[in-house]
Amino acid sequence: MDSRTITIRTTWKTQSIIMKKLKLFFILTITFSTLLAASLSFSACKMPEKMATGDLGVIIERMDGSVLIVNNTSLSILCRVKGLGDLSHASIVFSRDARFAFVFGRDGGLTKIDLLNGVIVKRIMQSGNSIGGAISQDGRYVAVSNYEPGGVNIFSVDDLSKVADIPAVYGESNLRSKTVGLVDAPGNQFIFSLYDGNEIWQVQVEKNADSVSTSTKKYLNAGKAPYDGLISSNGRYYIAGLFGEDGLSLLDLWHPEKGLQRILSHYGKGKKKLPVYKMPHLEGWAIAGKYAFLPAVGLHEVLVVDINTWQEVKRIKVHSQPVFAMASPDDRQIWVNFAFPDNNILQVIDSETFEIIKQFQPGKGILHMEFTPRSEHVWVSVRDNDEIIIYDTKTLKELKRLPAKKPSGIFFSSRAHRIGL
Amino acid sequence: MDSRTITIRTTWKTQSIIMKKLKLFFILTITFSTLLAASLSFSACKMPEKMATGDLGVIIERMDGSVLIVNNTSLSILCRVKGLGDLSHASIVFSRDARFAFVFGRDGGLTKIDLLNGVIVKRIMQSGNSIGGAISQDGRYVAVSNYEPGGVNIFSVDDLSKVADIPAVYGESNLRSKTVGLVDAPGNQFIFSLYDGNEIWQVQVEKNADSVSTSTKKYLNAGKAPYDGLISSNGRYYIAGLFGEDGLSLLDLWHPEKGLQRILSHYGKGKKKLPVYKMPHLEGWAIAGKYAFLPAVGLHEVLVVDINTWQEVKRIKVHSQPVFAMASPDDRQIWVNFAFPDNNILQVIDSETFEIIKQFQPGKGILHMEFTPRSEHVWVSVRDNDEIIIYDTKTLKELKRLPAKKPSGIFFSSRAHRIGL
Repeated sequence: MDSRTITIRTTWKTQSIIMKKLKLFFILTITFSTLLAASLSFSACKMPEKMATGDLGVIIERMDGSVLIVNNTSLSILCRVKGLGDLSHASIVFSRDARFAFVFGRDGGLTKIDLLNGVIVKRIMQSGNSIGGAISQDGRYVAVSNYEPGGVNIFSVDDLSKVADIPAVYGESNLRSKTVGLVDAPGNQFIFSLYDGNEIWQVQVEKNADSVSTSTKKYLNAGKAPYDGLISSNGRYYIAGLFGEDGLSLLDLWHPEKGLQRILSHYGKGKKKLPVYKMPHLEGWAIAGKYAFLPAVGLHEVLVVDINTWQEVKRIKVHSQPVFAMASPDDRQIWVNFAFPDNNILQVIDSETFEIIKQFQPGKGILHMEFTPRSEHVWVSVRDNDEIIIYDTKTLKELKRLPAKKPSGIFFSSRAHRIGL
Repeated sequence: MDSRTITIRTTWKTQSIIMKKLKLFFILTITFSTLLAASLSFSACKMPEKMATGDLGVIIERMDGSVLIVNNTSLSILCRVKGLGDLSHASIVFSRDARFAFVFGRDGGLTKIDLLNGVIVKRIMQSGNSIGGAISQDGRYVAVSNYEPGGVNIFSVDDLSKVADIPAVYGESNLRSKTVGLVDAPGNQFIFSLYDGNEIWQVQVEKNADSVSTSTKKYLNAGKAPYDGLISSNGRYYIAGLFGEDGLSLLDLWHPEKGLQRILSHYGKGKKKLPVYKMPHLEGWAIAGKYAFLPAVGLHEVLVVDINTWQEVKRIKVHSQPVFAMASPDDRQIWVNFAFPDNNILQVIDSETFEIIKQFQPGKGILHMEFTPRSEHVWVSVRDNDEIIIYDTKTLKELKRLPAKKPSGIFFSSRAHRIGL
C-alpha cells in the first residue's frame, strides 16, 4: 500500500521577552473579557453556585447561533449561550474535566464555553469554512477539520492559541483538499480524510518542553471522495465512507503497516441510482457488539457488517435514506433518522433481530439523537417543532419535550471520557 | 432451567404527618451536619471555588479509613477525607452528575462524599459486614451487597434513606446467604450472586409516586459457591465465577427466559490443586473486543474466552495466581496483578498476541489498577510503598508517584457514565 511519512515540527517557543509581554497583555485581556462575559451572562443563566457537570449537555440552536446547556437528570434547560456565529453544521467536544465545551461552527468559528458559568470563555475564527473537530487523548489539543482552506488546525485547549497547521496538500499540483471525518485516536492521534485528495491522514501530536510537534502519515488511494469517517469505540478501526465509488476504506490502527483495506466493495449505490438528498453521517456509536450499522448512501438501507470479518451480514430496509444510524450504549437498539423529505420519521431497529420495532413521527426536521451514557434515555432534536423530545429507551414512550430554537446536534458531557466522539 | 419470580413491594409512603415531621428533623440534622463537616474539612482541603469533577478520582486508604480525592489531568492529590471506618475491602460508585462518591466499607458503612467540597455529606452503618455496591441506571439508588446479614439493601442517593431490603433467603431452611458480585444492569436492574445459596438474583427497581418497588427473579442452581461476578460493558452478559466447582455461570440478560448457562465447564482447578491465596476479582473491564480475560482461581493462568461462542481460546501463563485482569479502555492491553506472596509483580499482556510484553516490580502489595477513561494512563496502588504509581500505557514508562497511606482501590469519576462499574 502507498504510504509515506512526513514530520512537521513547529516551534512555538514561549520564552522570549516579547512573548512574555504579549502573554501578560493577553492574559489581562482574557481575564477582562471573561469577567465581562461572566458579569453579563452568569446572572442571566442563573447557574447554581456549586454544580458538577457530569450530567450536562449542550444543544446546538442552528439558526440563532446559540446553544442550550441542559441537564439530563432533571430533563431541563439551564442556560442559553449566544453569539456563536453560523452553527448550521456544528459539533462539540468536551474538555477532560467535562467543564468546557468546544463548539466547531460552520463558518470556521471555534468557541470555548464554560458549562459551570454558562459563558463563552473565548471565541476565534480559525478558518473560512469548517466541518467538525476532535480533542486529543491527553486533553491538551482540539483539532478542527476545514474545507476552506483545506486542512486541519490544532489549538491549545487553554487559550485556543494555534499550535499546528496541517494543510491538506495532495497530488502533483499541490492542491488543498477539504478535510472530513476527523476523529481522535489512542496515542494522541488525529485521523481524517481528504475529500478531494482521496487520502486518509494519521497525525500524532506531541508536547515538547516549549513547543508542539506533529508527525503525519499519509495513506494514499483511500478511494474516491471519502465523505465522513468513524472510529470504533476502542479506537482501533477507522472507517471512511466513500461517495465516489463502491465500498468503504478501513484502517486498522493496530496494524498501520498493512495500509488501507477496502471493505464491502460490492456495496454501492446500485444500478438504479437514487438521488442523494443528504450525505449520511458516520459516528462511533454505530458499532454495537460485533456489528457495525452503517447508513447506506442514497439507498433506503442500513448495512450490517460483522466487525470481525468486515463482511456484510444483512441489509435492513428502512423508511428512506438514512442520515444517522446510532447504537444505544447498551447495544440493544439502533435509532435511525432520514434525509429530506422524510426527515419527519424516526425508526428503531432491534440490534439482534434486525427488525424495526418502532416508528415515530414526532415532527419535521429530526436532525440528531443522543443517548444518555448508561442508555436509559435518548434525546432527539426536532428542528421544525422547535423542540427536543426525550424518550425512554426501555418503554419507547415519550418522557418530556423541551423548547429549543431550531435545534440540531445534541452532545452530552460524558463524551469527554470516550475515544473518538 | 429453574427460575421463579417473586415480587416484593415496599411501601415507604412519605405522606403521613409523622413522616413529614421526621423528614423536617432529618433535613435540619443533615443540613447542620453538612455545614459542620463543610466548615471543618473544606478549608483543610482547599478545593477550588469553581471546579468540574470529570477528571477526578477517589483512592481508598485502607488502614486509616480515609480516601484521597485526586486529579488525573494534573496527576495530583487534592484532598484527604477522613472518618470512613473499615475500608479493608472497599469500593466506590459515582452519582450520575459525577459530583458524589458512594463508598462501600467492609464494616457495612455507606458513606456519601461530595467531591466539590471534599467532605462527607452523610454516613450510615447499613449492615454488619458488606462487600461492594452498585448504582442504578437512573442514578436514584445505590445497592449494597451484604455478608451479614446476607442480602442486598437499597438506598436513595439523596439522603441514604433505605428504600428496599432484599434478604438473600434460600433453600428450605430459610437460611440467609452472603451476597457477592453485585452489579447494575440496564432497565434499572441489579444483579448479584448468593455465595452460600448458589443462586443468581435479578432485581428490578421502580420508582412509584410515593414508594419504591422491587421485583426479584431468582435463578437457582447457579453452581457451587459463586464468589464474584462481572457484567459486560453493554450490560448484556452477567458472569459469576465459581469457587466450589468447575466452570462459570452465564446469564444473558437479553434472554433471561433461557436461564443460566454453564460456560468453560472443563475449566477447573486441575488435578494438582493449588492452594488459593486470594480469591480473584472479576470486573467488567476484563472484556476487550471479542475476548474476556478472566483470572483463573488457584492457577497461574489468565483464561481467554471468545464472548461470541463462550469457548476457551487460550490460557495465558502468568507469573502467579492472578487477582485482577483488567483491559485498557482501548482494548490493547490486559494488566494483571497477583495474590500474596507474589503481589509485588505486575504483568502486561498484549490483547492480540496474548504475550506478556512487560513486567514491573515496583514494590509489595500491588492491590488495584485504574485506567484513565481514554486509556492513556493507568494508576496502580502499591500498598507497602504507601504509593500510587502512574504509568503511560503507550511507552510503559513510569510517569509519577504520589504518596498515599496503604492505598487499595482506585476509582475515577468517569465510572459514573459506564454500565456495570
